Amino acid sequence: MPNHPTKIIYPADVPKAKRSLYNSNWQLLTKKTGRLLLLAGDQRIEHLNSDFFGPGIDQADNDPEHFFQIADKMPIGAAAVHYGLASWYGQHYRRTAYVIKLNGKTNLLPGDPISRCLAGVGQAIALAKQAGFRLAGVGYTIYLGSQHEGQMMAEASEIIRQAHAQGLLAIVWIYPKGVNVKNENDAEIIAGAAGVAVSLGADFVKLKAPKPLTVKNIQRIVQAAGKTKVVFAGGSSRTAGQVFKDIQVQLAAGAAGVAIGRNIHQRSLTEASNWLRGLAAMIYEQKTAEQVLSRLKINKPSRHKIK
Amino acid sequence: MPNHPTKIIYPADVPKAKRSLYNSNWQLLTKKTGRLLLLAGDQRIEHLNSDFFGPGIDQADNDPEHFFQIADKMPIGAAAVHYGLASWYGQHYRRTAYVIKLNGKTNLLPGDPISRCLAGVGQAIALAKQAGFRLAGVGYTIYLGSQHEGQMMAEASEIIRQAHAQGLLAIVWIYPKGVNVKNENDAEIIAGAAGVAVSLGADFVKLKAPKPLTVKNIQRIVQAAGKTKVVFAGGSSRTAGQVFKDIQVQLAAGAAGVAIGRNIHQRSLTEASNWLRGLAAMIYEQKTAEQVLSRLKINKPSRHKIK
Amino acid sequence: MPNHPTKIIYPADVPKAKRSLYNSNWQLLTKKTGRLLLLAGDQRIEHLNSDFFGPGIDQADNDPEHFFQIADKMPIGAAAVHYGLASWYGQHYRRTAYVIKLNGKTNLLPGDPISRCLAGVGQAIALAKQAGFRLAGVGYTIYLGSQHEGQMMAEASEIIRQAHAQGLLAIVWIYPKGVNVKNENDAEIIAGAAGVAVSLGADFVKLKAPKPLTVKNIQRIVQAAGKTKVVFAGGSSRTAGQVFKDIQVQLAAGAAGVAIGRNIHQRSLTEASNWLRGLAAMIYEQKTAEQVLSRLKINKPSRHKIK
Amino acid sequence: MPNHPTKIIYPADVPKAKRSLYNSNWQLLTKKTGRLLLLAGDQRIEHLNSDFFGPGIDQADNDPEHFFQIADKMPIGAAAVHYGLASWYGQHYRRTAYVIKLNGKTNLLPGDPISRCLAGVGQAIALAKQAGFRLAGVGYTIYLGSQHEGQMMAEASEIIRQAHAQGLLAIVWIYPKGVNVKNENDAEIIAGAAGVAVSLGADFVKLKAPKPLTVKNIQRIVQAAGKTKVVFAGGSSRTAGQVFKDIQVQLAAGAAGVAIGRNIHQRSLTEASNWLRGLAAMIYEQKTAEQVLSRLKINKPSRHKIK
Amino acid sequence: MPNHPTKIIYPADVPKAKRSLYNSNWQLLTKKTGRLLLLAGDQRIEHLNSDFFGPGIDQADNDPEHFFQIADKMPIGAAAVHYGLASWYGQHYRRTAYVIKLNGKTNLLPGDPISRCLAGVGQAIALAKQAGFRLAGVGYTIYLGSQHEGQMMAEASEIIRQAHAQGLLAIVWIYPKGVNVKNENDAEIIAGAAGVAVSLGADFVKLKAPKPLTVKNIQRIVQAAGKTKVVFAGGSSRTAGQVFKDIQVQLAAGAAGVAIGRNIHQRSLTEASNWLRGLAAMIYEQKTAEQVLSRLKINKPSRHKIK
Repeated sequence: MPNHPTKIIYPADVPKAKRSLYNSNWQLLTKKTGRLLLLAGDQRIEHLNSDFFGPGIDQADNDPEHFFQIADKMPIGAAAVHYGLASWYGQHYRRTAYVIKLNGKTNLLPGDPISRCLAGVGQAIALAKQAGFRLAGVGYTIYLGSQHEGQMMAEASEIIRQAHAQGLLAIVWIYPKGVNVKNENDAEIIAGAAGVAVSLGADFVKLKAPKPLTVKNIQRIVQAAGKTKVVFAGGSSRTAGQVFKDIQVQLAAGAAGVAIGRNIHQRSLTEASNWLRGLAAMIYEQKTAEQVLSRLKINKPSRHKIK
Repeated sequence: MPNHPTKIIYPADVPKAKRSLYNSNWQLLTKKTGRLLLLAGDQRIEHLNSDFFGPGIDQADNDPEHFFQIADKMPIGAAAVHYGLASWYGQHYRRTAYVIKLNGKTNLLPGDPISRCLAGVGQAIALAKQAGFRLAGVGYTIYLGSQHEGQMMAEASEIIRQAHAQGLLAIVWIYPKGVNVKNENDAEIIAGAAGVAVSLGADFVKLKAPKPLTVKNIQRIVQAAGKTKVVFAGGSSRTAGQVFKDIQVQLAAGAAGVAIGRNIHQRSLTEASNWLRGLAAMIYEQKTAEQVLSRLKINKPSRHKIK
Repeated sequence: MPNHPTKIIYPADVPKAKRSLYNSNWQLLTKKTGRLLLLAGDQRIEHLNSDFFGPGIDQADNDPEHFFQIADKMPIGAAAVHYGLASWYGQHYRRTAYVIKLNGKTNLLPGDPISRCLAGVGQAIALAKQAGFRLAGVGYTIYLGSQHEGQMMAEASEIIRQAHAQGLLAIVWIYPKGVNVKNENDAEIIAGAAGVAVSLGADFVKLKAPKPLTVKNIQRIVQAAGKTKVVFAGGSSRTAGQVFKDIQVQLAAGAAGVAIGRNIHQRSLTEASNWLRGLAAMIYEQKTAEQVLSRLKINKPSRHKIK
Repeated sequence: MPNHPTKIIYPADVPKAKRSLYNSNWQLLTKKTGRLLLLAGDQRIEHLNSDFFGPGIDQADNDPEHFFQIADKMPIGAAAVHYGLASWYGQHYRRTAYVIKLNGKTNLLPGDPISRCLAGVGQAIALAKQAGFRLAGVGYTIYLGSQHEGQMMAEASEIIRQAHAQGLLAIVWIYPKGVNVKNENDAEIIAGAAGVAVSLGADFVKLKAPKPLTVKNIQRIVQAAGKTKVVFAGGSSRTAGQVFKDIQVQLAAGAAGVAIGRNIHQRSLTEASNWLRGLAAMIYEQKTAEQVLSRLKINKPSRHKIK
Repeated sequence: MPNHPTKIIYPADVPKAKRSLYNSNWQLLTKKTGRLLLLAGDQRIEHLNSDFFGPGIDQADNDPEHFFQIADKMPIGAAAVHYGLASWYGQHYRRTAYVIKLNGKTNLLPGDPISRCLAGVGQAIALAKQAGFRLAGVGYTIYLGSQHEGQMMAEASEIIRQAHAQGLLAIVWIYPKGVNVKNENDAEIIAGAAGVAVSLGADFVKLKAPKPLTVKNIQRIVQAAGKTKVVFAGGSSRTAGQVFKDIQVQLAAGAAGVAIGRNIHQRSLTEASNWLRGLAAMIYEQKTAEQVLSRLKINKPSRHKIK
């Protein structure tokens, strides 16, 4: 990893007095590379217990502490978790940086989704201070095309401003979803989501990877996001080989990194660590998928599609 | 019961200056055992009059004072009641500790439930001070899977934070319920509810016991709750023998206690007291159901399933 | 009427500094008897013009001033009116005490009712001060079983607390009503409403009288209300004889008084006064219906059922 | 017009310190007669362009300035307009007094109407001060019987209180309307609306004239409004003769004046002025319709029913 | 362009202390001509990616920076963009003035549209200060005839007041739209929208051009807007010749300018610049469409109808 930080552009709503803090959060989150490996751990609300228990899932995963044990020693940019998990576990796992995922919803309801704030920016900052962990930013999910999209876009706007005002980074998850969204994986709608992210002023946007996963589609999306950096979910392929090769395509076409969750925490601590080291090598050190796969013992197919 | 308090982990949003108060509330609520026997008395709103009057219900139960007479002398951790009952009766029954149940709804409406706040954390604290009773914590119900789950999760989050900020414990009742919830008693969805509780930062979560009531199911749920302690409703069996044996299974598999309501207050003061003494012996002193049942005169079948 | 006040229990959220005021309002409202004769005058919003004009209604009743002329000299506990009526007429009729009915709705809409606040507690207090009339308390209607019950229960809770904080009494009207309420006159659901009233901390609850109007049903309801006092609408019988005898049953079985509206103000000043004197004799002096009926000239059948 | 003001009754929520201002606004609005000729100019939002352009409408009316040119020199009590019109034109037409109509909606939507606030009382006062025009009061429309009636009644209540607190008059437009309102012109429902107006504390209520337009119906409505003064729309007849005779009936039966809009501003400045002078003579000087009609050159039939 | 500013009328809610700033913003926005050439760049949220990528669209347009490169050197009055774009790009393109478009929605949802605020007036001002660009005003879209029109009219009212209070101009986009709007292009409904704009107090209103595009229709609309200036979308014709001739009709009939978006930014920087120079010559210098078309190399048909 590089010894000196990358140069960054500040969004104009980061006040002068907070630029230094914003910059250090940026370097922290990207390991001074400008790229992001985000370990997403918000599924305990989003997907309830099915992501954490069952055939093919390491039995350690049912305990919330497993996620933190993985995050603690790995070269990730940050672990993204809801407020309560950060409140209970963050104080004991302080080697990793955190992104507090501010809103959440379960997967029990059909139809147009809405995800409401469970904590505010100020509350995330206060928690980090009391718990003694480093908070690099905040996260928020927008379901574009839901009849509730307006509420979520408005709330995200406010959160981005508040984060910037405090020198934090703002990461938005934007998923087109709802009864009026025909194809969530279409490059056009994902590029549209990217355009919304930059229009709201986000620093990073987490998007689904488009299908088909072509260089042209990725480039279209990354370009449409403008100064907002794009991270994709780590690919929907089933085998480690394909996951890593998908990511290689994304990175080569301009993606700024990867956000990955289930494909990591459903594994044993050892296996999850191998995966994360592999991803880190690709993201931070430009290693190829082939180099990474040959070096690491990652060959078990992943049971689930990555979120 | 033990002479010295158990060691506890503080959620990080309990400020340093309130840790001592939080700890004493924790010891008060768990009788220094780390385990909880909660007497739930919120049914006057939740179930209206049918829980308090009718065949098989002791006629004393129709008067709200009956509940307080039971609570007053018994070795329970706390009595959970709505604000108004605490306002009228708490001042006269100050030997028990209280948990103010902050939200409530009746059972008159079909469809997706919503339970709204009837009092805030600060109002509960002010009431306790004016009435002279000990307030150990606050309670809040979330109906997961209801179309209103987002409002309740957001409100619960805020209440948990406010409770912790004031050194109080936060107990959430989480019941998956609504037109999109198929099986409220499934271990998977109850384990999901447990995961939501810890993701919100609750201290205790009250859950329905899963069906089938197996050690494996209980363990799955308790583990998924992580650092949030789990108490179950006292079992759905009809006879005292089965109720106590169900609880024994739960406790042995890791549950932190029992929350029980109708199965207690529908009985005469004497009978209710016997039941509570029995439960206390199991919860605080690790007595077996058999020991308890043989010692106490509890053999009348309970008419209702416990909530 | 008694010369010295009855002893009262203070709800705990009446602050020490306001107990004296609360007590004097209690004595004022109950004429030092602990019992309440409430003259309800909120129908101008609730029922629009049909309660005030038409066959069998004294023509004076169409003018809002008629109600105040009746209230002014009669031994009622208080006249319950909406803010605007109190604003226009209260200053000129200051011999009676008032309860400001804070919320209201018309009868034009079918389906699940909602009644919204038209004035707050502080505004009622300010009005009374400026107008120079005595404000003994505030009133609020909850339609239990309406899909909007949660909003009304929450608002009522807040109003009860605010009233107590200012030394005022809080009277809740609780009517089970809406598409999911099958039998509004059933003792069970009315007893449930009584239990909600005490769970919210109300001082008085106005309920419909149950059908059948038996001692047992009344007792069940009164007992379920605990420390909250119950007043019923004055009976649904058509003749004066039956109205007074129904009230006698209610009082004998434990009701704390009567709330009556249309059956009074639809009459001429003289006739209305006779009725109120009769009710006062029963409520405050334990006279029997027979004593009252023989003494007064009340024999014209009442055209409407009392609300 | 009289040389000395009429005596008025103050609603009790006009504070002592604002009585002098309230009184001067009352005298201004009623030209010291206690009666009101209100020129209503809120149709640009309420009816969009169809009231201002088309066959039978003077072509000057399409320009908003036409309304102000009419209002400026005429003996009206006030011109009622929305905030934006007052902001652009009020500064240049300061001879007339104004009532700012605070809420508004278009006529594009079927079903139950809701009209939301476009400006608050304080904002209307600030505007008047900056623009240099005299603000006599504020206006607000309630659609009774709409499923949104509760929101509008609550908001109107608040506005009436705020207006009184600032020494302004409050005029409510109350129109029963919506899918549950069968006959908007029935005397009973209009009398009900009058009763709502006084229950909210309004100074004036603008109502539709009942059908049939009989003395008995008008009296019923005016009496039901109690201390709130009633002004009707200027009659629904088509010819000038009938309009003026309808108004004569209303005034004779107790109405406090007229609110008229389209029937004035759709005419040329000269013709509109003749009409207003005629109305002023009837309202302020008790002239008969016959006297007025013979003196003025008003004989062209009015194309529209008056709102 | 003229050397000295045009005289303006101040809306009365621009405080005296802010008139100088309002005036300089007015001169800035209209290049001292009283006319407006607005470059609209809010489509990244409104239309997602389809306006920026695909056949017939210059490939540079997919990158948000393209829009700013066009705006930066051109004689436009202002570039209208959402907050986030201004936050990322405004600091680097400071030669143009900006209008922050405060609300937004995507095009994914059918039915009655609602567009919610993504930033407030104060936040736009703060951003401009921090970024160092000139903010001439704010923009807001109202969908008239949508069931949500009331919320948008109320919010627009507030924004107009806040803008004026800060010396900024307020531009409203008013589009009749929703299931109850039959013909969005009808002169009557567009004239109605113009009347709403002036009733809310807006400085400029952006409207669709009516069909048919006749002088009479344009005059009707412009006159109905009164002191609010009207700018139309640049015509719906497909060839450059027709677009420019449509604009000529509008300007000649009284329109105060043009708001144009897609028809500019979908072109290469060179071509877009030619178009804007042509429009500027027509708007600011009264050049004819013919003069402009012969001078400039604009002859490629425009692929899309202008918004």
